[in-house]
Amino acid sequence: MNLQNPRGMRDFSPEESILRNNVINLIKQSFENYGFSPLETPTIERLDILSAKYAGGEEILKETFKLKDQGKRELGLRYDLTVPLARYVGMNSQIKLPFKRYQIGTVYRDGPIKLGRAREFIQCDVDTVGSFSPLADAELLILAARIFEKLSLKVEIKINSRKILNAIMESLDIPEKDKIDFILSLDKLEKIGAKGVVEDLKKKGIKEYKEMSKLLTTAKINSPEELKRYIAKLFSKKKKKFENTEYEKGFDEVSEILRCLKGLGIKNAEFNGNLARGLAYYTGPVFEVFLKNSEIKSSIAAGGRYDDMIGKFLEGKNRYPATGISFGLEPIIKTLKSSKDEIKKTVTEIYIIPINTLKESLKIAEGLRKENIKVDIAFDKKGVGKGLEYANSLSIPYAVIVGEDELKKNKVKLK
Amino acid sequence: MNLQNPRGMRDFSPEESILRNNVINLIKQSFENYGFSPLETPTIERLDILSAKYAGGEEILKETFKLKDQGKRELGLRYDLTVPLARYVGMNSQIKLPFKRYQIGTVYRDGPIKLGRAREFIQCDVDTVGSFSPLADAELLILAARIFEKLSLKVEIKINSRKILNAIMESLDIPEKDKIDFILSLDKLEKIGAKGVVEDLKKKGIKEYKEMSKLLTTAKINSPEELKRYIAKLFSKKKKKFENTEYEKGFDEVSEILRCLKGLGIKNAEFNGNLARGLAYYTGPVFEVFLKNSEIKSSIAAGGRYDDMIGKFLEGKNRYPATGISFGLEPIIKTLKSSKDEIKKTVTEIYIIPINTLKESLKIAEGLRKENIKVDIAFDKKGVGKGLEYANSLSIPYAVIVGEDELKKNKVKLK
Repeated sequence: MNLQNPRGMRDFSPEESILRNNVINLIKQSFENYGFSPLETPTIERLDILSAKYAGGEEILKETFKLKDQGKRELGLRYDLTVPLARYVGMNSQIKLPFKRYQIGTVYRDGPIKLGRAREFIQCDVDTVGSFSPLADAELLILAARIFEKLSLKVEIKINSRKILNAIMESLDIPEKDKIDFILSLDKLEKIGAKGVVEDLKKKGIKEYKEMSKLLTTAKINSPEELKRYIAKLFSKKKKKFENTEYEKGFDEVSEILRCLKGLGIKNAEFNGNLARGLAYYTGPVFEVFLKNSEIKSSIAAGGRYDDMIGKFLEGKNRYPATGISFGLEPIIKTLKSSKDEIKKTVTEIYIIPINTLKESLKIAEGLRKENIKVDIAFDKKGVGKGLEYANSLSIPYAVIVGEDELKKNKVKLK
Repeated sequence: MNLQNPRGMRDFSPEESILRNNVINLIKQSFENYGFSPLETPTIERLDILSAKYAGGEEILKETFKLKDQGKRELGLRYDLTVPLARYVGMNSQIKLPFKRYQIGTVYRDGPIKLGRAREFIQCDVDTVGSFSPLADAELLILAARIFEKLSLKVEIKINSRKILNAIMESLDIPEKDKIDFILSLDKLEKIGAKGVVEDLKKKGIKEYKEMSKLLTTAKINSPEELKRYIAKLFSKKKKKFENTEYEKGFDEVSEILRCLKGLGIKNAEFNGNLARGLAYYTGPVFEVFLKNSEIKSSIAAGGRYDDMIGKFLEGKNRYPATGISFGLEPIIKTLKSSKDEIKKTVTEIYIIPINTLKESLKIAEGLRKENIKVDIAFDKKGVGKGLEYANSLSIPYAVIVGEDELKKNKVKLK
């Protein structure tokens, strides 16, 4: 019989599962420390929910696992944890806002599996629904900073705002049809430099590239205050209103978030005026977390504010301001695995080897377990040698040999 | 838009999720205390694995959710955690035996949803692969007893053995074709009494009912030693060999398990010669755990020894002795929910309400979080009244009001 896993599906050995569980527990505890409570939704959703207009979109829907139940109802496996959150909020209109929830669960994408992409993977999502305050965004970043501190991973937190990208485009009069192309070019700034971005715009036929070139050489695109002054000047030159608009607010919100982080001693966060963070449903601050000095170049946590998505998804009149961040368990585990010297093969801390003392040894084991020690015991009478070999092969730290003589003296042998 | 969940799929609110997580953590920690390590397998398996000859069987396969990936490969959602374990053992022939693993995960059954049955539910499985010792079975029962002690649930553990059922049938010369019917009748003993069982056998045309009637009135079917003596006599009367057979061993193994439990002070375990525990793949001791004085009459944990299943499943020459027990999270939660006075609505322990002191309040929150306290903070300036109302509606135990005057005096108000 062919015992292989389906494509893109993986087993995690005890060794890997122990590490994964430790990381998940740390993330979970941190989420709870910031007052987020758990929410569980099913892995199977109705297909019309997953394919709703304001849900994941065409690209993701193509990769959605579809299935039917006995009643021929059309279903799908969830591809993220945000759509289920939106559905839950809609179904439970009595929820007290702000609603701060986290969910750690498997999501499914039936996509290509090159580059080690899996078709089932775990996302760790934390979202606040019901607050417009930029401090709700800041809180997510404080939380992210603390989690990576606890994991001893050096990271950089990059922050931008959809409103700032809108302000840049408005100041340059980028036409609607070019906006997506413009943002995609700008997003490459760090990879290809200012010149590269301008070339890219030119190639795409976006004729505002000259003004953009000036902006990139003159304005400090990584200081929200300086970029704000530059953009404000462009607005006023073109007789456009800037003060007290969403454009201005975009800059002020990011400044407030950064001030808040610095005030708490978080130094690895910075403004990054070119960060695009997808285009989907973000309406305000967006953020990505990158590993420093790592071969993993993609972000290991990312999110942003999406004030319109839930309301539109629910097709109602209410607006549900929301902000969230999602931690990618897989890249975090990959990094930790490569940096750790020793990985536990078993949870067991003490292995008891009874020599004709099974009854007494079981009592000793029970006593240790009451002290919350993880204890295993050899049942099959195979002798000390075999027992020690087993403990050794699993790297169990201690082996206790319980012989009759030792018992009489109220002693045991510890190896 | 219709926001309902698919049939048989459920959301768990923060309130429910907190309780579920607490129970899962308690079970997980207990599993680890007994030296079981975590294993994770995917929720999606290849359909030919799920429908293999020695896997779940026709009945379960009918209820299996089936799906295909982009490459048209036939897949299914796992309906239990045992088949994935068998596959994993087969795929990883280098595994050190005994292999003690636990897995807590969702399983799927596309069945009728009357009686509150869900189509996605969590199983908590713990299995030892690679040991023939009855102490491996006993260990699972010690573990079960400890878990229910910790959950403050009063339970009864019932133990039998497939070998004992075989011995009874052999002693009565039950023909092969009647064996399943015989066991199913015997399984009803507690519900319908000795007379009812005999009537049932008669009705089914099993002509050995007279001898069975005698057995049920003469032998103590709840003492393995007495039942053994009775069965041994029947064997000798019919000139059949009993000593040193698997039949005899069945009784001795159960006696050993019970002795071991009693030796550790576990008093709520007893032999139950009529317990059938399904018919699937069990080969030795079988056990079920029932709630005392509860309206839930079905078992809340159950398992047994299946020495042949993995080897047959793998179609190889090796035998993989194995024993396991599965805890049903859903009935456990249901019972705890009805017995608990107060259920937490949020994880938050302290709610901070800043009055023009956001910056300082954030620092206080961070300080408390470092002490591992679960802290939430009001961002939206809505005043003390609204803040206290929010804390109250979520039953957060403490609210801290941080005003400017109080800060000057290095004090805060605790409510």
